[in-house]
Amino acid sequence: MRKDEQLQILKDLIKINTENGNELETAEYIGGLFKLHHVPYRIDRFDGNRANLVAEVGLKETDEVLGITGHQDTVNVSDQRAWTHEPFAAEVVGDKLYGRGAADMKSGLAAQIITLIELHEQRAVKGTLRFIATAGEEYGTPGANRLLKQGVVDDLSALLVGEATDGQIVYAHSGSLNYRIKSYGQSAHSARATQGINAISGLLQFATAEATLFQQAPLDSILGAVKHSITVIGGGEQVNTIPDYAELSGNVRPTQRFDNQQVIALIQTAISQINQQTDYHLEFDLIHSFPPVETTPDNPFVRLVQRAAADAFVDRNVALEITNGATDASVFIKGNPTMPVVILGPDEKAVSHQVDEYTTLSGFYQVIAAYEDIAVSYFKAGSRTEQLAADVVSPQIRPARQAG
Amino acid sequence: MRKDEQLQILKDLIKINTENGNELETAEYIGGLFKLHHVPYRIDRFDGNRANLVAEVGLKETDEVLGITGHQDTVNVSDQRAWTHEPFAAEVVGDKLYGRGAADMKSGLAAQIITLIELHEQRAVKGTLRFIATAGEEYGTPGANRLLKQGVVDDLSALLVGEATDGQIVYAHSGSLNYRIKSYGQSAHSARATQGINAISGLLQFATAEATLFQQAPLDSILGAVKHSITVIGGGEQVNTIPDYAELSGNVRPTQRFDNQQVIALIQTAISQINQQTDYHLEFDLIHSFPPVETTPDNPFVRLVQRAAADAFVDRNVALEITNGATDASVFIKGNPTMPVVILGPDEKAVSHQVDEYTTLSGFYQVIAAYEDIAVSYFKAGSRTEQLAADVVSPQIRPARQAG
Repeated sequence: MRKDEQLQILKDLIKINTENGNELETAEYIGGLFKLHHVPYRIDRFDGNRANLVAEVGLKETDEVLGITGHQDTVNVSDQRAWTHEPFAAEVVGDKLYGRGAADMKSGLAAQIITLIELHEQRAVKGTLRFIATAGEEYGTPGANRLLKQGVVDDLSALLVGEATDGQIVYAHSGSLNYRIKSYGQSAHSARATQGINAISGLLQFATAEATLFQQAPLDSILGAVKHSITVIGGGEQVNTIPDYAELSGNVRPTQRFDNQQVIALIQTAISQINQQTDYHLEFDLIHSFPPVETTPDNPFVRLVQRAAADAFVDRNVALEITNGATDASVFIKGNPTMPVVILGPDEKAVSHQVDEYTTLSGFYQVIAAYEDIAVSYFKAGSRTEQLAADVVSPQIRPARQAG
Repeated sequence: MRKDEQLQILKDLIKINTENGNELETAEYIGGLFKLHHVPYRIDRFDGNRANLVAEVGLKETDEVLGITGHQDTVNVSDQRAWTHEPFAAEVVGDKLYGRGAADMKSGLAAQIITLIELHEQRAVKGTLRFIATAGEEYGTPGANRLLKQGVVDDLSALLVGEATDGQIVYAHSGSLNYRIKSYGQSAHSARATQGINAISGLLQFATAEATLFQQAPLDSILGAVKHSITVIGGGEQVNTIPDYAELSGNVRPTQRFDNQQVIALIQTAISQINQQTDYHLEFDLIHSFPPVETTPDNPFVRLVQRAAADAFVDRNVALEITNGATDASVFIKGNPTMPVVILGPDEKAVSHQVDEYTTLSGFYQVIAAYEDIAVSYFKAGSRTEQLAADVVSPQIRPARQAG
């Protein structure tokens, strides 16, 4: 495929508005490309205009199945007037291509589509290369949840996620657990405060406890400390009324060393103590819980991806990183807990979800080369053994850097 | 005036819906009564259908001016389906008359109107009895603010407020100060929490400080400790985003010993400390500030009102009380800081602002008798000296009871 054809696919994807939904249009666009290039695929439509797409190529000369995955949705353009480039025009200025999803992650998705088409035409995949395009990664992961139940990841021997990483190798990311604390009190006129039970005061008891709650969580050897934030709070309606209800929502980033169940137990213990020791009444709701995804940095798949990325991204140093951002892999790992997972994607991670989001054309072409190299090399004899790993450069592990 | 005529006035007032406004219709109704009975009055209309009304009777044989005041507005009927008596029908069942404002405070207001009409007809007021009916006491006191500026209270020698007190004598009430704390941070993805500044965390710093902030405030000899509550809180929009803004509102009940200015200074000092010692940025907004109203329990006017109430409310023990609820007197005291202020009103304080609010007919007729007694006795020679006070029973001071 010519470079201008590759770029056109990326532009076409950005021009389809998939703010928190509408993935069907994207899936049908991808399906159209695959049909043209004789790549077998299926669209998994749900909830009206939402859709996943799964496609597979390869000679099946080995039983191994390499998954490559990306999401079709984007976060929304919350403040369009702040954009200097129209978010759905895919405008190119120099090496930059602007648009909602340019980084997160239509550039990675386009590179995966191109990889599938080109390797299929070249008959270059010895085993099976399965492309998994999801819906709703940015909110609730409904698409990945469906595919998990359908068993799409059960037989994967490794998974490559195409989220933007600036060409770096992310071999581990924390989980993500969102919860809500509901505080019930009793209303009263503020002049008779002692006749009521202030639900905000009850909530503040938890908030105070939360500030130090995770200090007791042991450090994960890869991901370090458990990160945690209270991100939404609300309670009360009138300043002269003692509120009978208040709630907060928080986010925690579990690790394998202190996992989602331990996080939940710790929060619930804190709540039980407050409920027992005070007049306040707090309740815990789990909003969602994605486990951490950790592959050891010396895993052969990690080293294969790093070698391929280092060969492709000639303009930069390719290092191993960890991140606190969850991906669809947090869902998929539930169906296949032992598969190695690596994230490798194009530019520009830092502008994901931001105004004037962009990717670089150079990084886009580089990541296509890396993906194709990985999908070909993966099925070569011995590729999944330490033998091949020994050939590649020893991993350069950067200090932990928080990333998307 | 016959009792059924008196009751009709109360019913008519309740049937006029003055939920947080529409006082003009009430003022015009009262004006119609006064016109019929040749009581001079003026209506102070503002903001469309809002209005105060001021009327005056008396022989002016002395320079003293006794004010009697009540508000025409009510809080709203938030949950009409929960009412078993239609809130604007003024339904009588036994000794109870139901309706929004029956207690707070159309019964007190009606008693004041009747007092004015009857004493005017009887030519029984030696000095000047000024009736001040206000708008918007329940929210923002726009009516009292206007009257204050017009100088309506400047020459008052004493003020009687007709809020429901169940026939008890309230000689002091705390002030009421509502404030807002705004917390500004910097948003970030929750996966990159340390790249942001969590505005909720900043707000929680203040909330934690607020819990003990007023422990250092000295006790008022009459009102005791400064009461304080955080009553509204809000911040954050999405659980996966570190919030860049959060705010809370709180209520404080200042006393003369620790007054509104000291309360404001204390809060601002706490905020300055947080701003200086952390990355958080908090700002203070004053929403409104009503000073405390305290008259010493041995003030002759307090004792006169107590004697009259004891004579009228033969079915109960009439005691001296304090309360934390603010009234229009908190506004009026600004224009006349030394005037004695007493609150005396009918039943049923506890159901103010509640579903199936009611007053008692017996209490309504009793408070009319008390008001008329007070307005006549006040202008008798020596009534404002210790000489008269010495005749009345020594004050029975109850322990502080928090009241509306």
